[in-house]
Amino acid sequence: MAETGAPEEIQVYRATWVMPITSDPIYDGAVAVKGDSIVAVAPFDKVSDAFPGARVIDFQDALLLPGFVNCHSHLEYACFRGLIDNHNFGPWILEFIGFKARLNGPDYAASAYLGAAECITSGITTVGDAMYSGESLKAIRQSGLRARAYQEALGIDDAHLDDTMARLSEKLDELREQTGDLIEIGLFPHATYTVSASLYRAIAEYARERGMMVASHVAESNEETIYIRSGTGMLALDLREKVGWDHLSRQPFGVTPVKYLQQWNVFGPDFMAVHCVHVGPRDIDVMASHDVSVAHCPKSNAKLGCGIAPLPALLEAGMRVGFGTDSPASSNIMDMFGEMRTAIFLHRGVRRDTRVLNAADCVLMATLGGARAMRMDDRIGSLEPGKQADMIAVDIKFNHFTPVHDPYSALVYGANQEDVFFTMVDGRVVYDRKVLKTLDNEKMTADALEVKNKLRS
Amino acid sequence: MAETGAPEEIQVYRATWVMPITSDPIYDGAVAVKGDSIVAVAPFDKVSDAFPGARVIDFQDALLLPGFVNCHSHLEYACFRGLIDNHNFGPWILEFIGFKARLNGPDYAASAYLGAAECITSGITTVGDAMYSGESLKAIRQSGLRARAYQEALGIDDAHLDDTMARLSEKLDELREQTGDLIEIGLFPHATYTVSASLYRAIAEYARERGMMVASHVAESNEETIYIRSGTGMLALDLREKVGWDHLSRQPFGVTPVKYLQQWNVFGPDFMAVHCVHVGPRDIDVMASHDVSVAHCPKSNAKLGCGIAPLPALLEAGMRVGFGTDSPASSNIMDMFGEMRTAIFLHRGVRRDTRVLNAADCVLMATLGGARAMRMDDRIGSLEPGKQADMIAVDIKFNHFTPVHDPYSALVYGANQEDVFFTMVDGRVVYDRKVLKTLDNEKMTADALEVKNKLRS
Repeated sequence: MAETGAPEEIQVYRATWVMPITSDPIYDGAVAVKGDSIVAVAPFDKVSDAFPGARVIDFQDALLLPGFVNCHSHLEYACFRGLIDNHNFGPWILEFIGFKARLNGPDYAASAYLGAAECITSGITTVGDAMYSGESLKAIRQSGLRARAYQEALGIDDAHLDDTMARLSEKLDELREQTGDLIEIGLFPHATYTVSASLYRAIAEYARERGMMVASHVAESNEETIYIRSGTGMLALDLREKVGWDHLSRQPFGVTPVKYLQQWNVFGPDFMAVHCVHVGPRDIDVMASHDVSVAHCPKSNAKLGCGIAPLPALLEAGMRVGFGTDSPASSNIMDMFGEMRTAIFLHRGVRRDTRVLNAADCVLMATLGGARAMRMDDRIGSLEPGKQADMIAVDIKFNHFTPVHDPYSALVYGANQEDVFFTMVDGRVVYDRKVLKTLDNEKMTADALEVKNKLRS
Repeated sequence: MAETGAPEEIQVYRATWVMPITSDPIYDGAVAVKGDSIVAVAPFDKVSDAFPGARVIDFQDALLLPGFVNCHSHLEYACFRGLIDNHNFGPWILEFIGFKARLNGPDYAASAYLGAAECITSGITTVGDAMYSGESLKAIRQSGLRARAYQEALGIDDAHLDDTMARLSEKLDELREQTGDLIEIGLFPHATYTVSASLYRAIAEYARERGMMVASHVAESNEETIYIRSGTGMLALDLREKVGWDHLSRQPFGVTPVKYLQQWNVFGPDFMAVHCVHVGPRDIDVMASHDVSVAHCPKSNAKLGCGIAPLPALLEAGMRVGFGTDSPASSNIMDMFGEMRTAIFLHRGVRRDTRVLNAADCVLMATLGGARAMRMDDRIGSLEPGKQADMIAVDIKFNHFTPVHDPYSALVYGANQEDVFFTMVDGRVVYDRKVLKTLDNEKMTADALEVKNKLRS
């Protein structure tokens, strides 16, 4: 119990289980919210005594917890879900680039609105979004999500480095004018096979000068390792041909993607490495020693045949790791519940040991862990007095939740995005009893079908 | 189009997508049902022309497909979900046995009713249920599910073999009197570490004489392999102590569990091997050559730290493989959608190749493949004229299904048990617009909470 305020300003949210994350679940718990902040988290009777006359919203058979922090997605690609399901990473990215060329700015915007809506309805309150067109910023802003919107950068030809940086800088200035209080702009050099060493360095320097955060796809696929280590494979040949880059810097670097990036001075606490599937113990040491954080995307990595990131080793090394759903183009849906349990099945299945990961570990990673990975844990990630009021309620009335022996278990093994019925970001209710409060579902669906037709034409 | 009947007897079910399994999905399709059978599966306009005046139930934005065939579960253990989530198989089974001792017949019945309800609400129309107490037969019968209800048998002490078989025979006679048209009784010798070779043989002989089907847990855990191969490990020591068997036949057999069972003449087309995690190429050859079928339970195997069954190799060997959810005591929920996508993530992740399994493969395994594994494919598993009307409708209106590029993809990557809103078994509607028609949800929930309290006491 932190403070008492004027009762009329306080809203008390009550549920069978409140899961603060930083302390044990509270049976018949409540969270008191004032404005954009949490002011109390405790058993309902205590909260009720502290704020007599406050408005009480009783969710009954529900789990009340911090909103999920989705460290990595591409909202613009929501309309691509299910379009290319059965290709390995290399052929997948080639085909994906072909489909991308069919869409224009408004199409990407339509797709991003759908993606932002899915975040809200699936209980994601903060998203790390890698923007290709930059269109998703509008969708994020209108939706009311909290976000770090990273502008993607690509460029392999150093002859155009200055141009690339000038355009990027201009784009970033433009984007910064469109953010509200809840959105921060970051930088996203796409990957080792689409961004030159010089561009990586220039971006890292630019970001550090301005206190901006950087993220990048790192060690996602075997194709990437082959390209960096040996200068060959399909990323050196087919991809270059596909995107029409005539400057083919195919010299082998002879190292892993992580070691390669280390040379260009991009690693630091402001850098998030997305994926990290193809990393060995020494790569992990390097990243851990630079306090690099990781976005773990188990579904995307498995579905694309990339493999399974060594999550237990990343955690053992003390790295800050959160979950990313990746884009619906690879993982089809942005369901953090699915990411959590898939991580458990993958890592327990491979290690043949249940001790590597449990439901509580996953819920921590999906909330406070993600907030730490994004360096936002001073504001979000747990239900504690003083933190911003980002929280969700999950319905546990369905018969497959009966009985609840443990709320972490019910959440991770039993729930999915459709059980979320209430989403609050920064004290604002953006989803209530399964109704979107900030976005027009009908319009989004109609727009998405138009995008679909373009993709299928 | 198979036959035309009196229009007043025909019900036509229409949906955006009808998925017959044995042929391509039909956009704006329909299924005509007469009594307990399917009489037509075709585009809606054709079905409509063939049966003018027939009652049309239009599901609109939905997928209509055969009900799932869940090859392996233990409905009696529904109340155990989430009770023991973080133990490896060996310690898990020890603790599980301890919890089981707290329950009596009516408790198992209450738990089985909850399990039967979950099957129906999650789109399972046929279940292969391994019964410990035998109580789940009532629940299955009242629910209206189609089932093979296997009576479990345990016994390691051959001095009591005749008694065990006599009691088993008596129990089976009793059970057979309680079945209706949709339930068949089978035999389930529990596992290699709880059933002696002589008892396996006696059961196989008994079953063959009566044309009954047999299933058994086979090669589930590393502990089982150690026990059979070396006569030691925790199944030889702790488990025996726990269950109080003083006859400890701990001699090492020096072979794998599959090779061990092969010696006792139990394998044949009437035998289903559940799990098959710890099987090598020669084990697979043995099983394939005897036309043994397999229940693949990817979630349970991974969650218990048992490992990942070599599904691609089982399928390459031409074995009949279906999915099993296993019991909620291990996998928490009986969601076939989760089993399908978990299988894709596990096998693609481990093999680093998308070609090992896709969504259509999984839907086939979850329906007709399961029916083949249970030797019921003459009646169920696909939507075809002449087959029994076992079918489900899945809602695809939620925004994470938008847009649908491919119905198989939407079903496997996007849907889960809560999207099922209609379940028909043998032409009877047992779940309609998310309302259970044969079971009392309120009573089940109350009973389950009593069982929970016993388990937690």
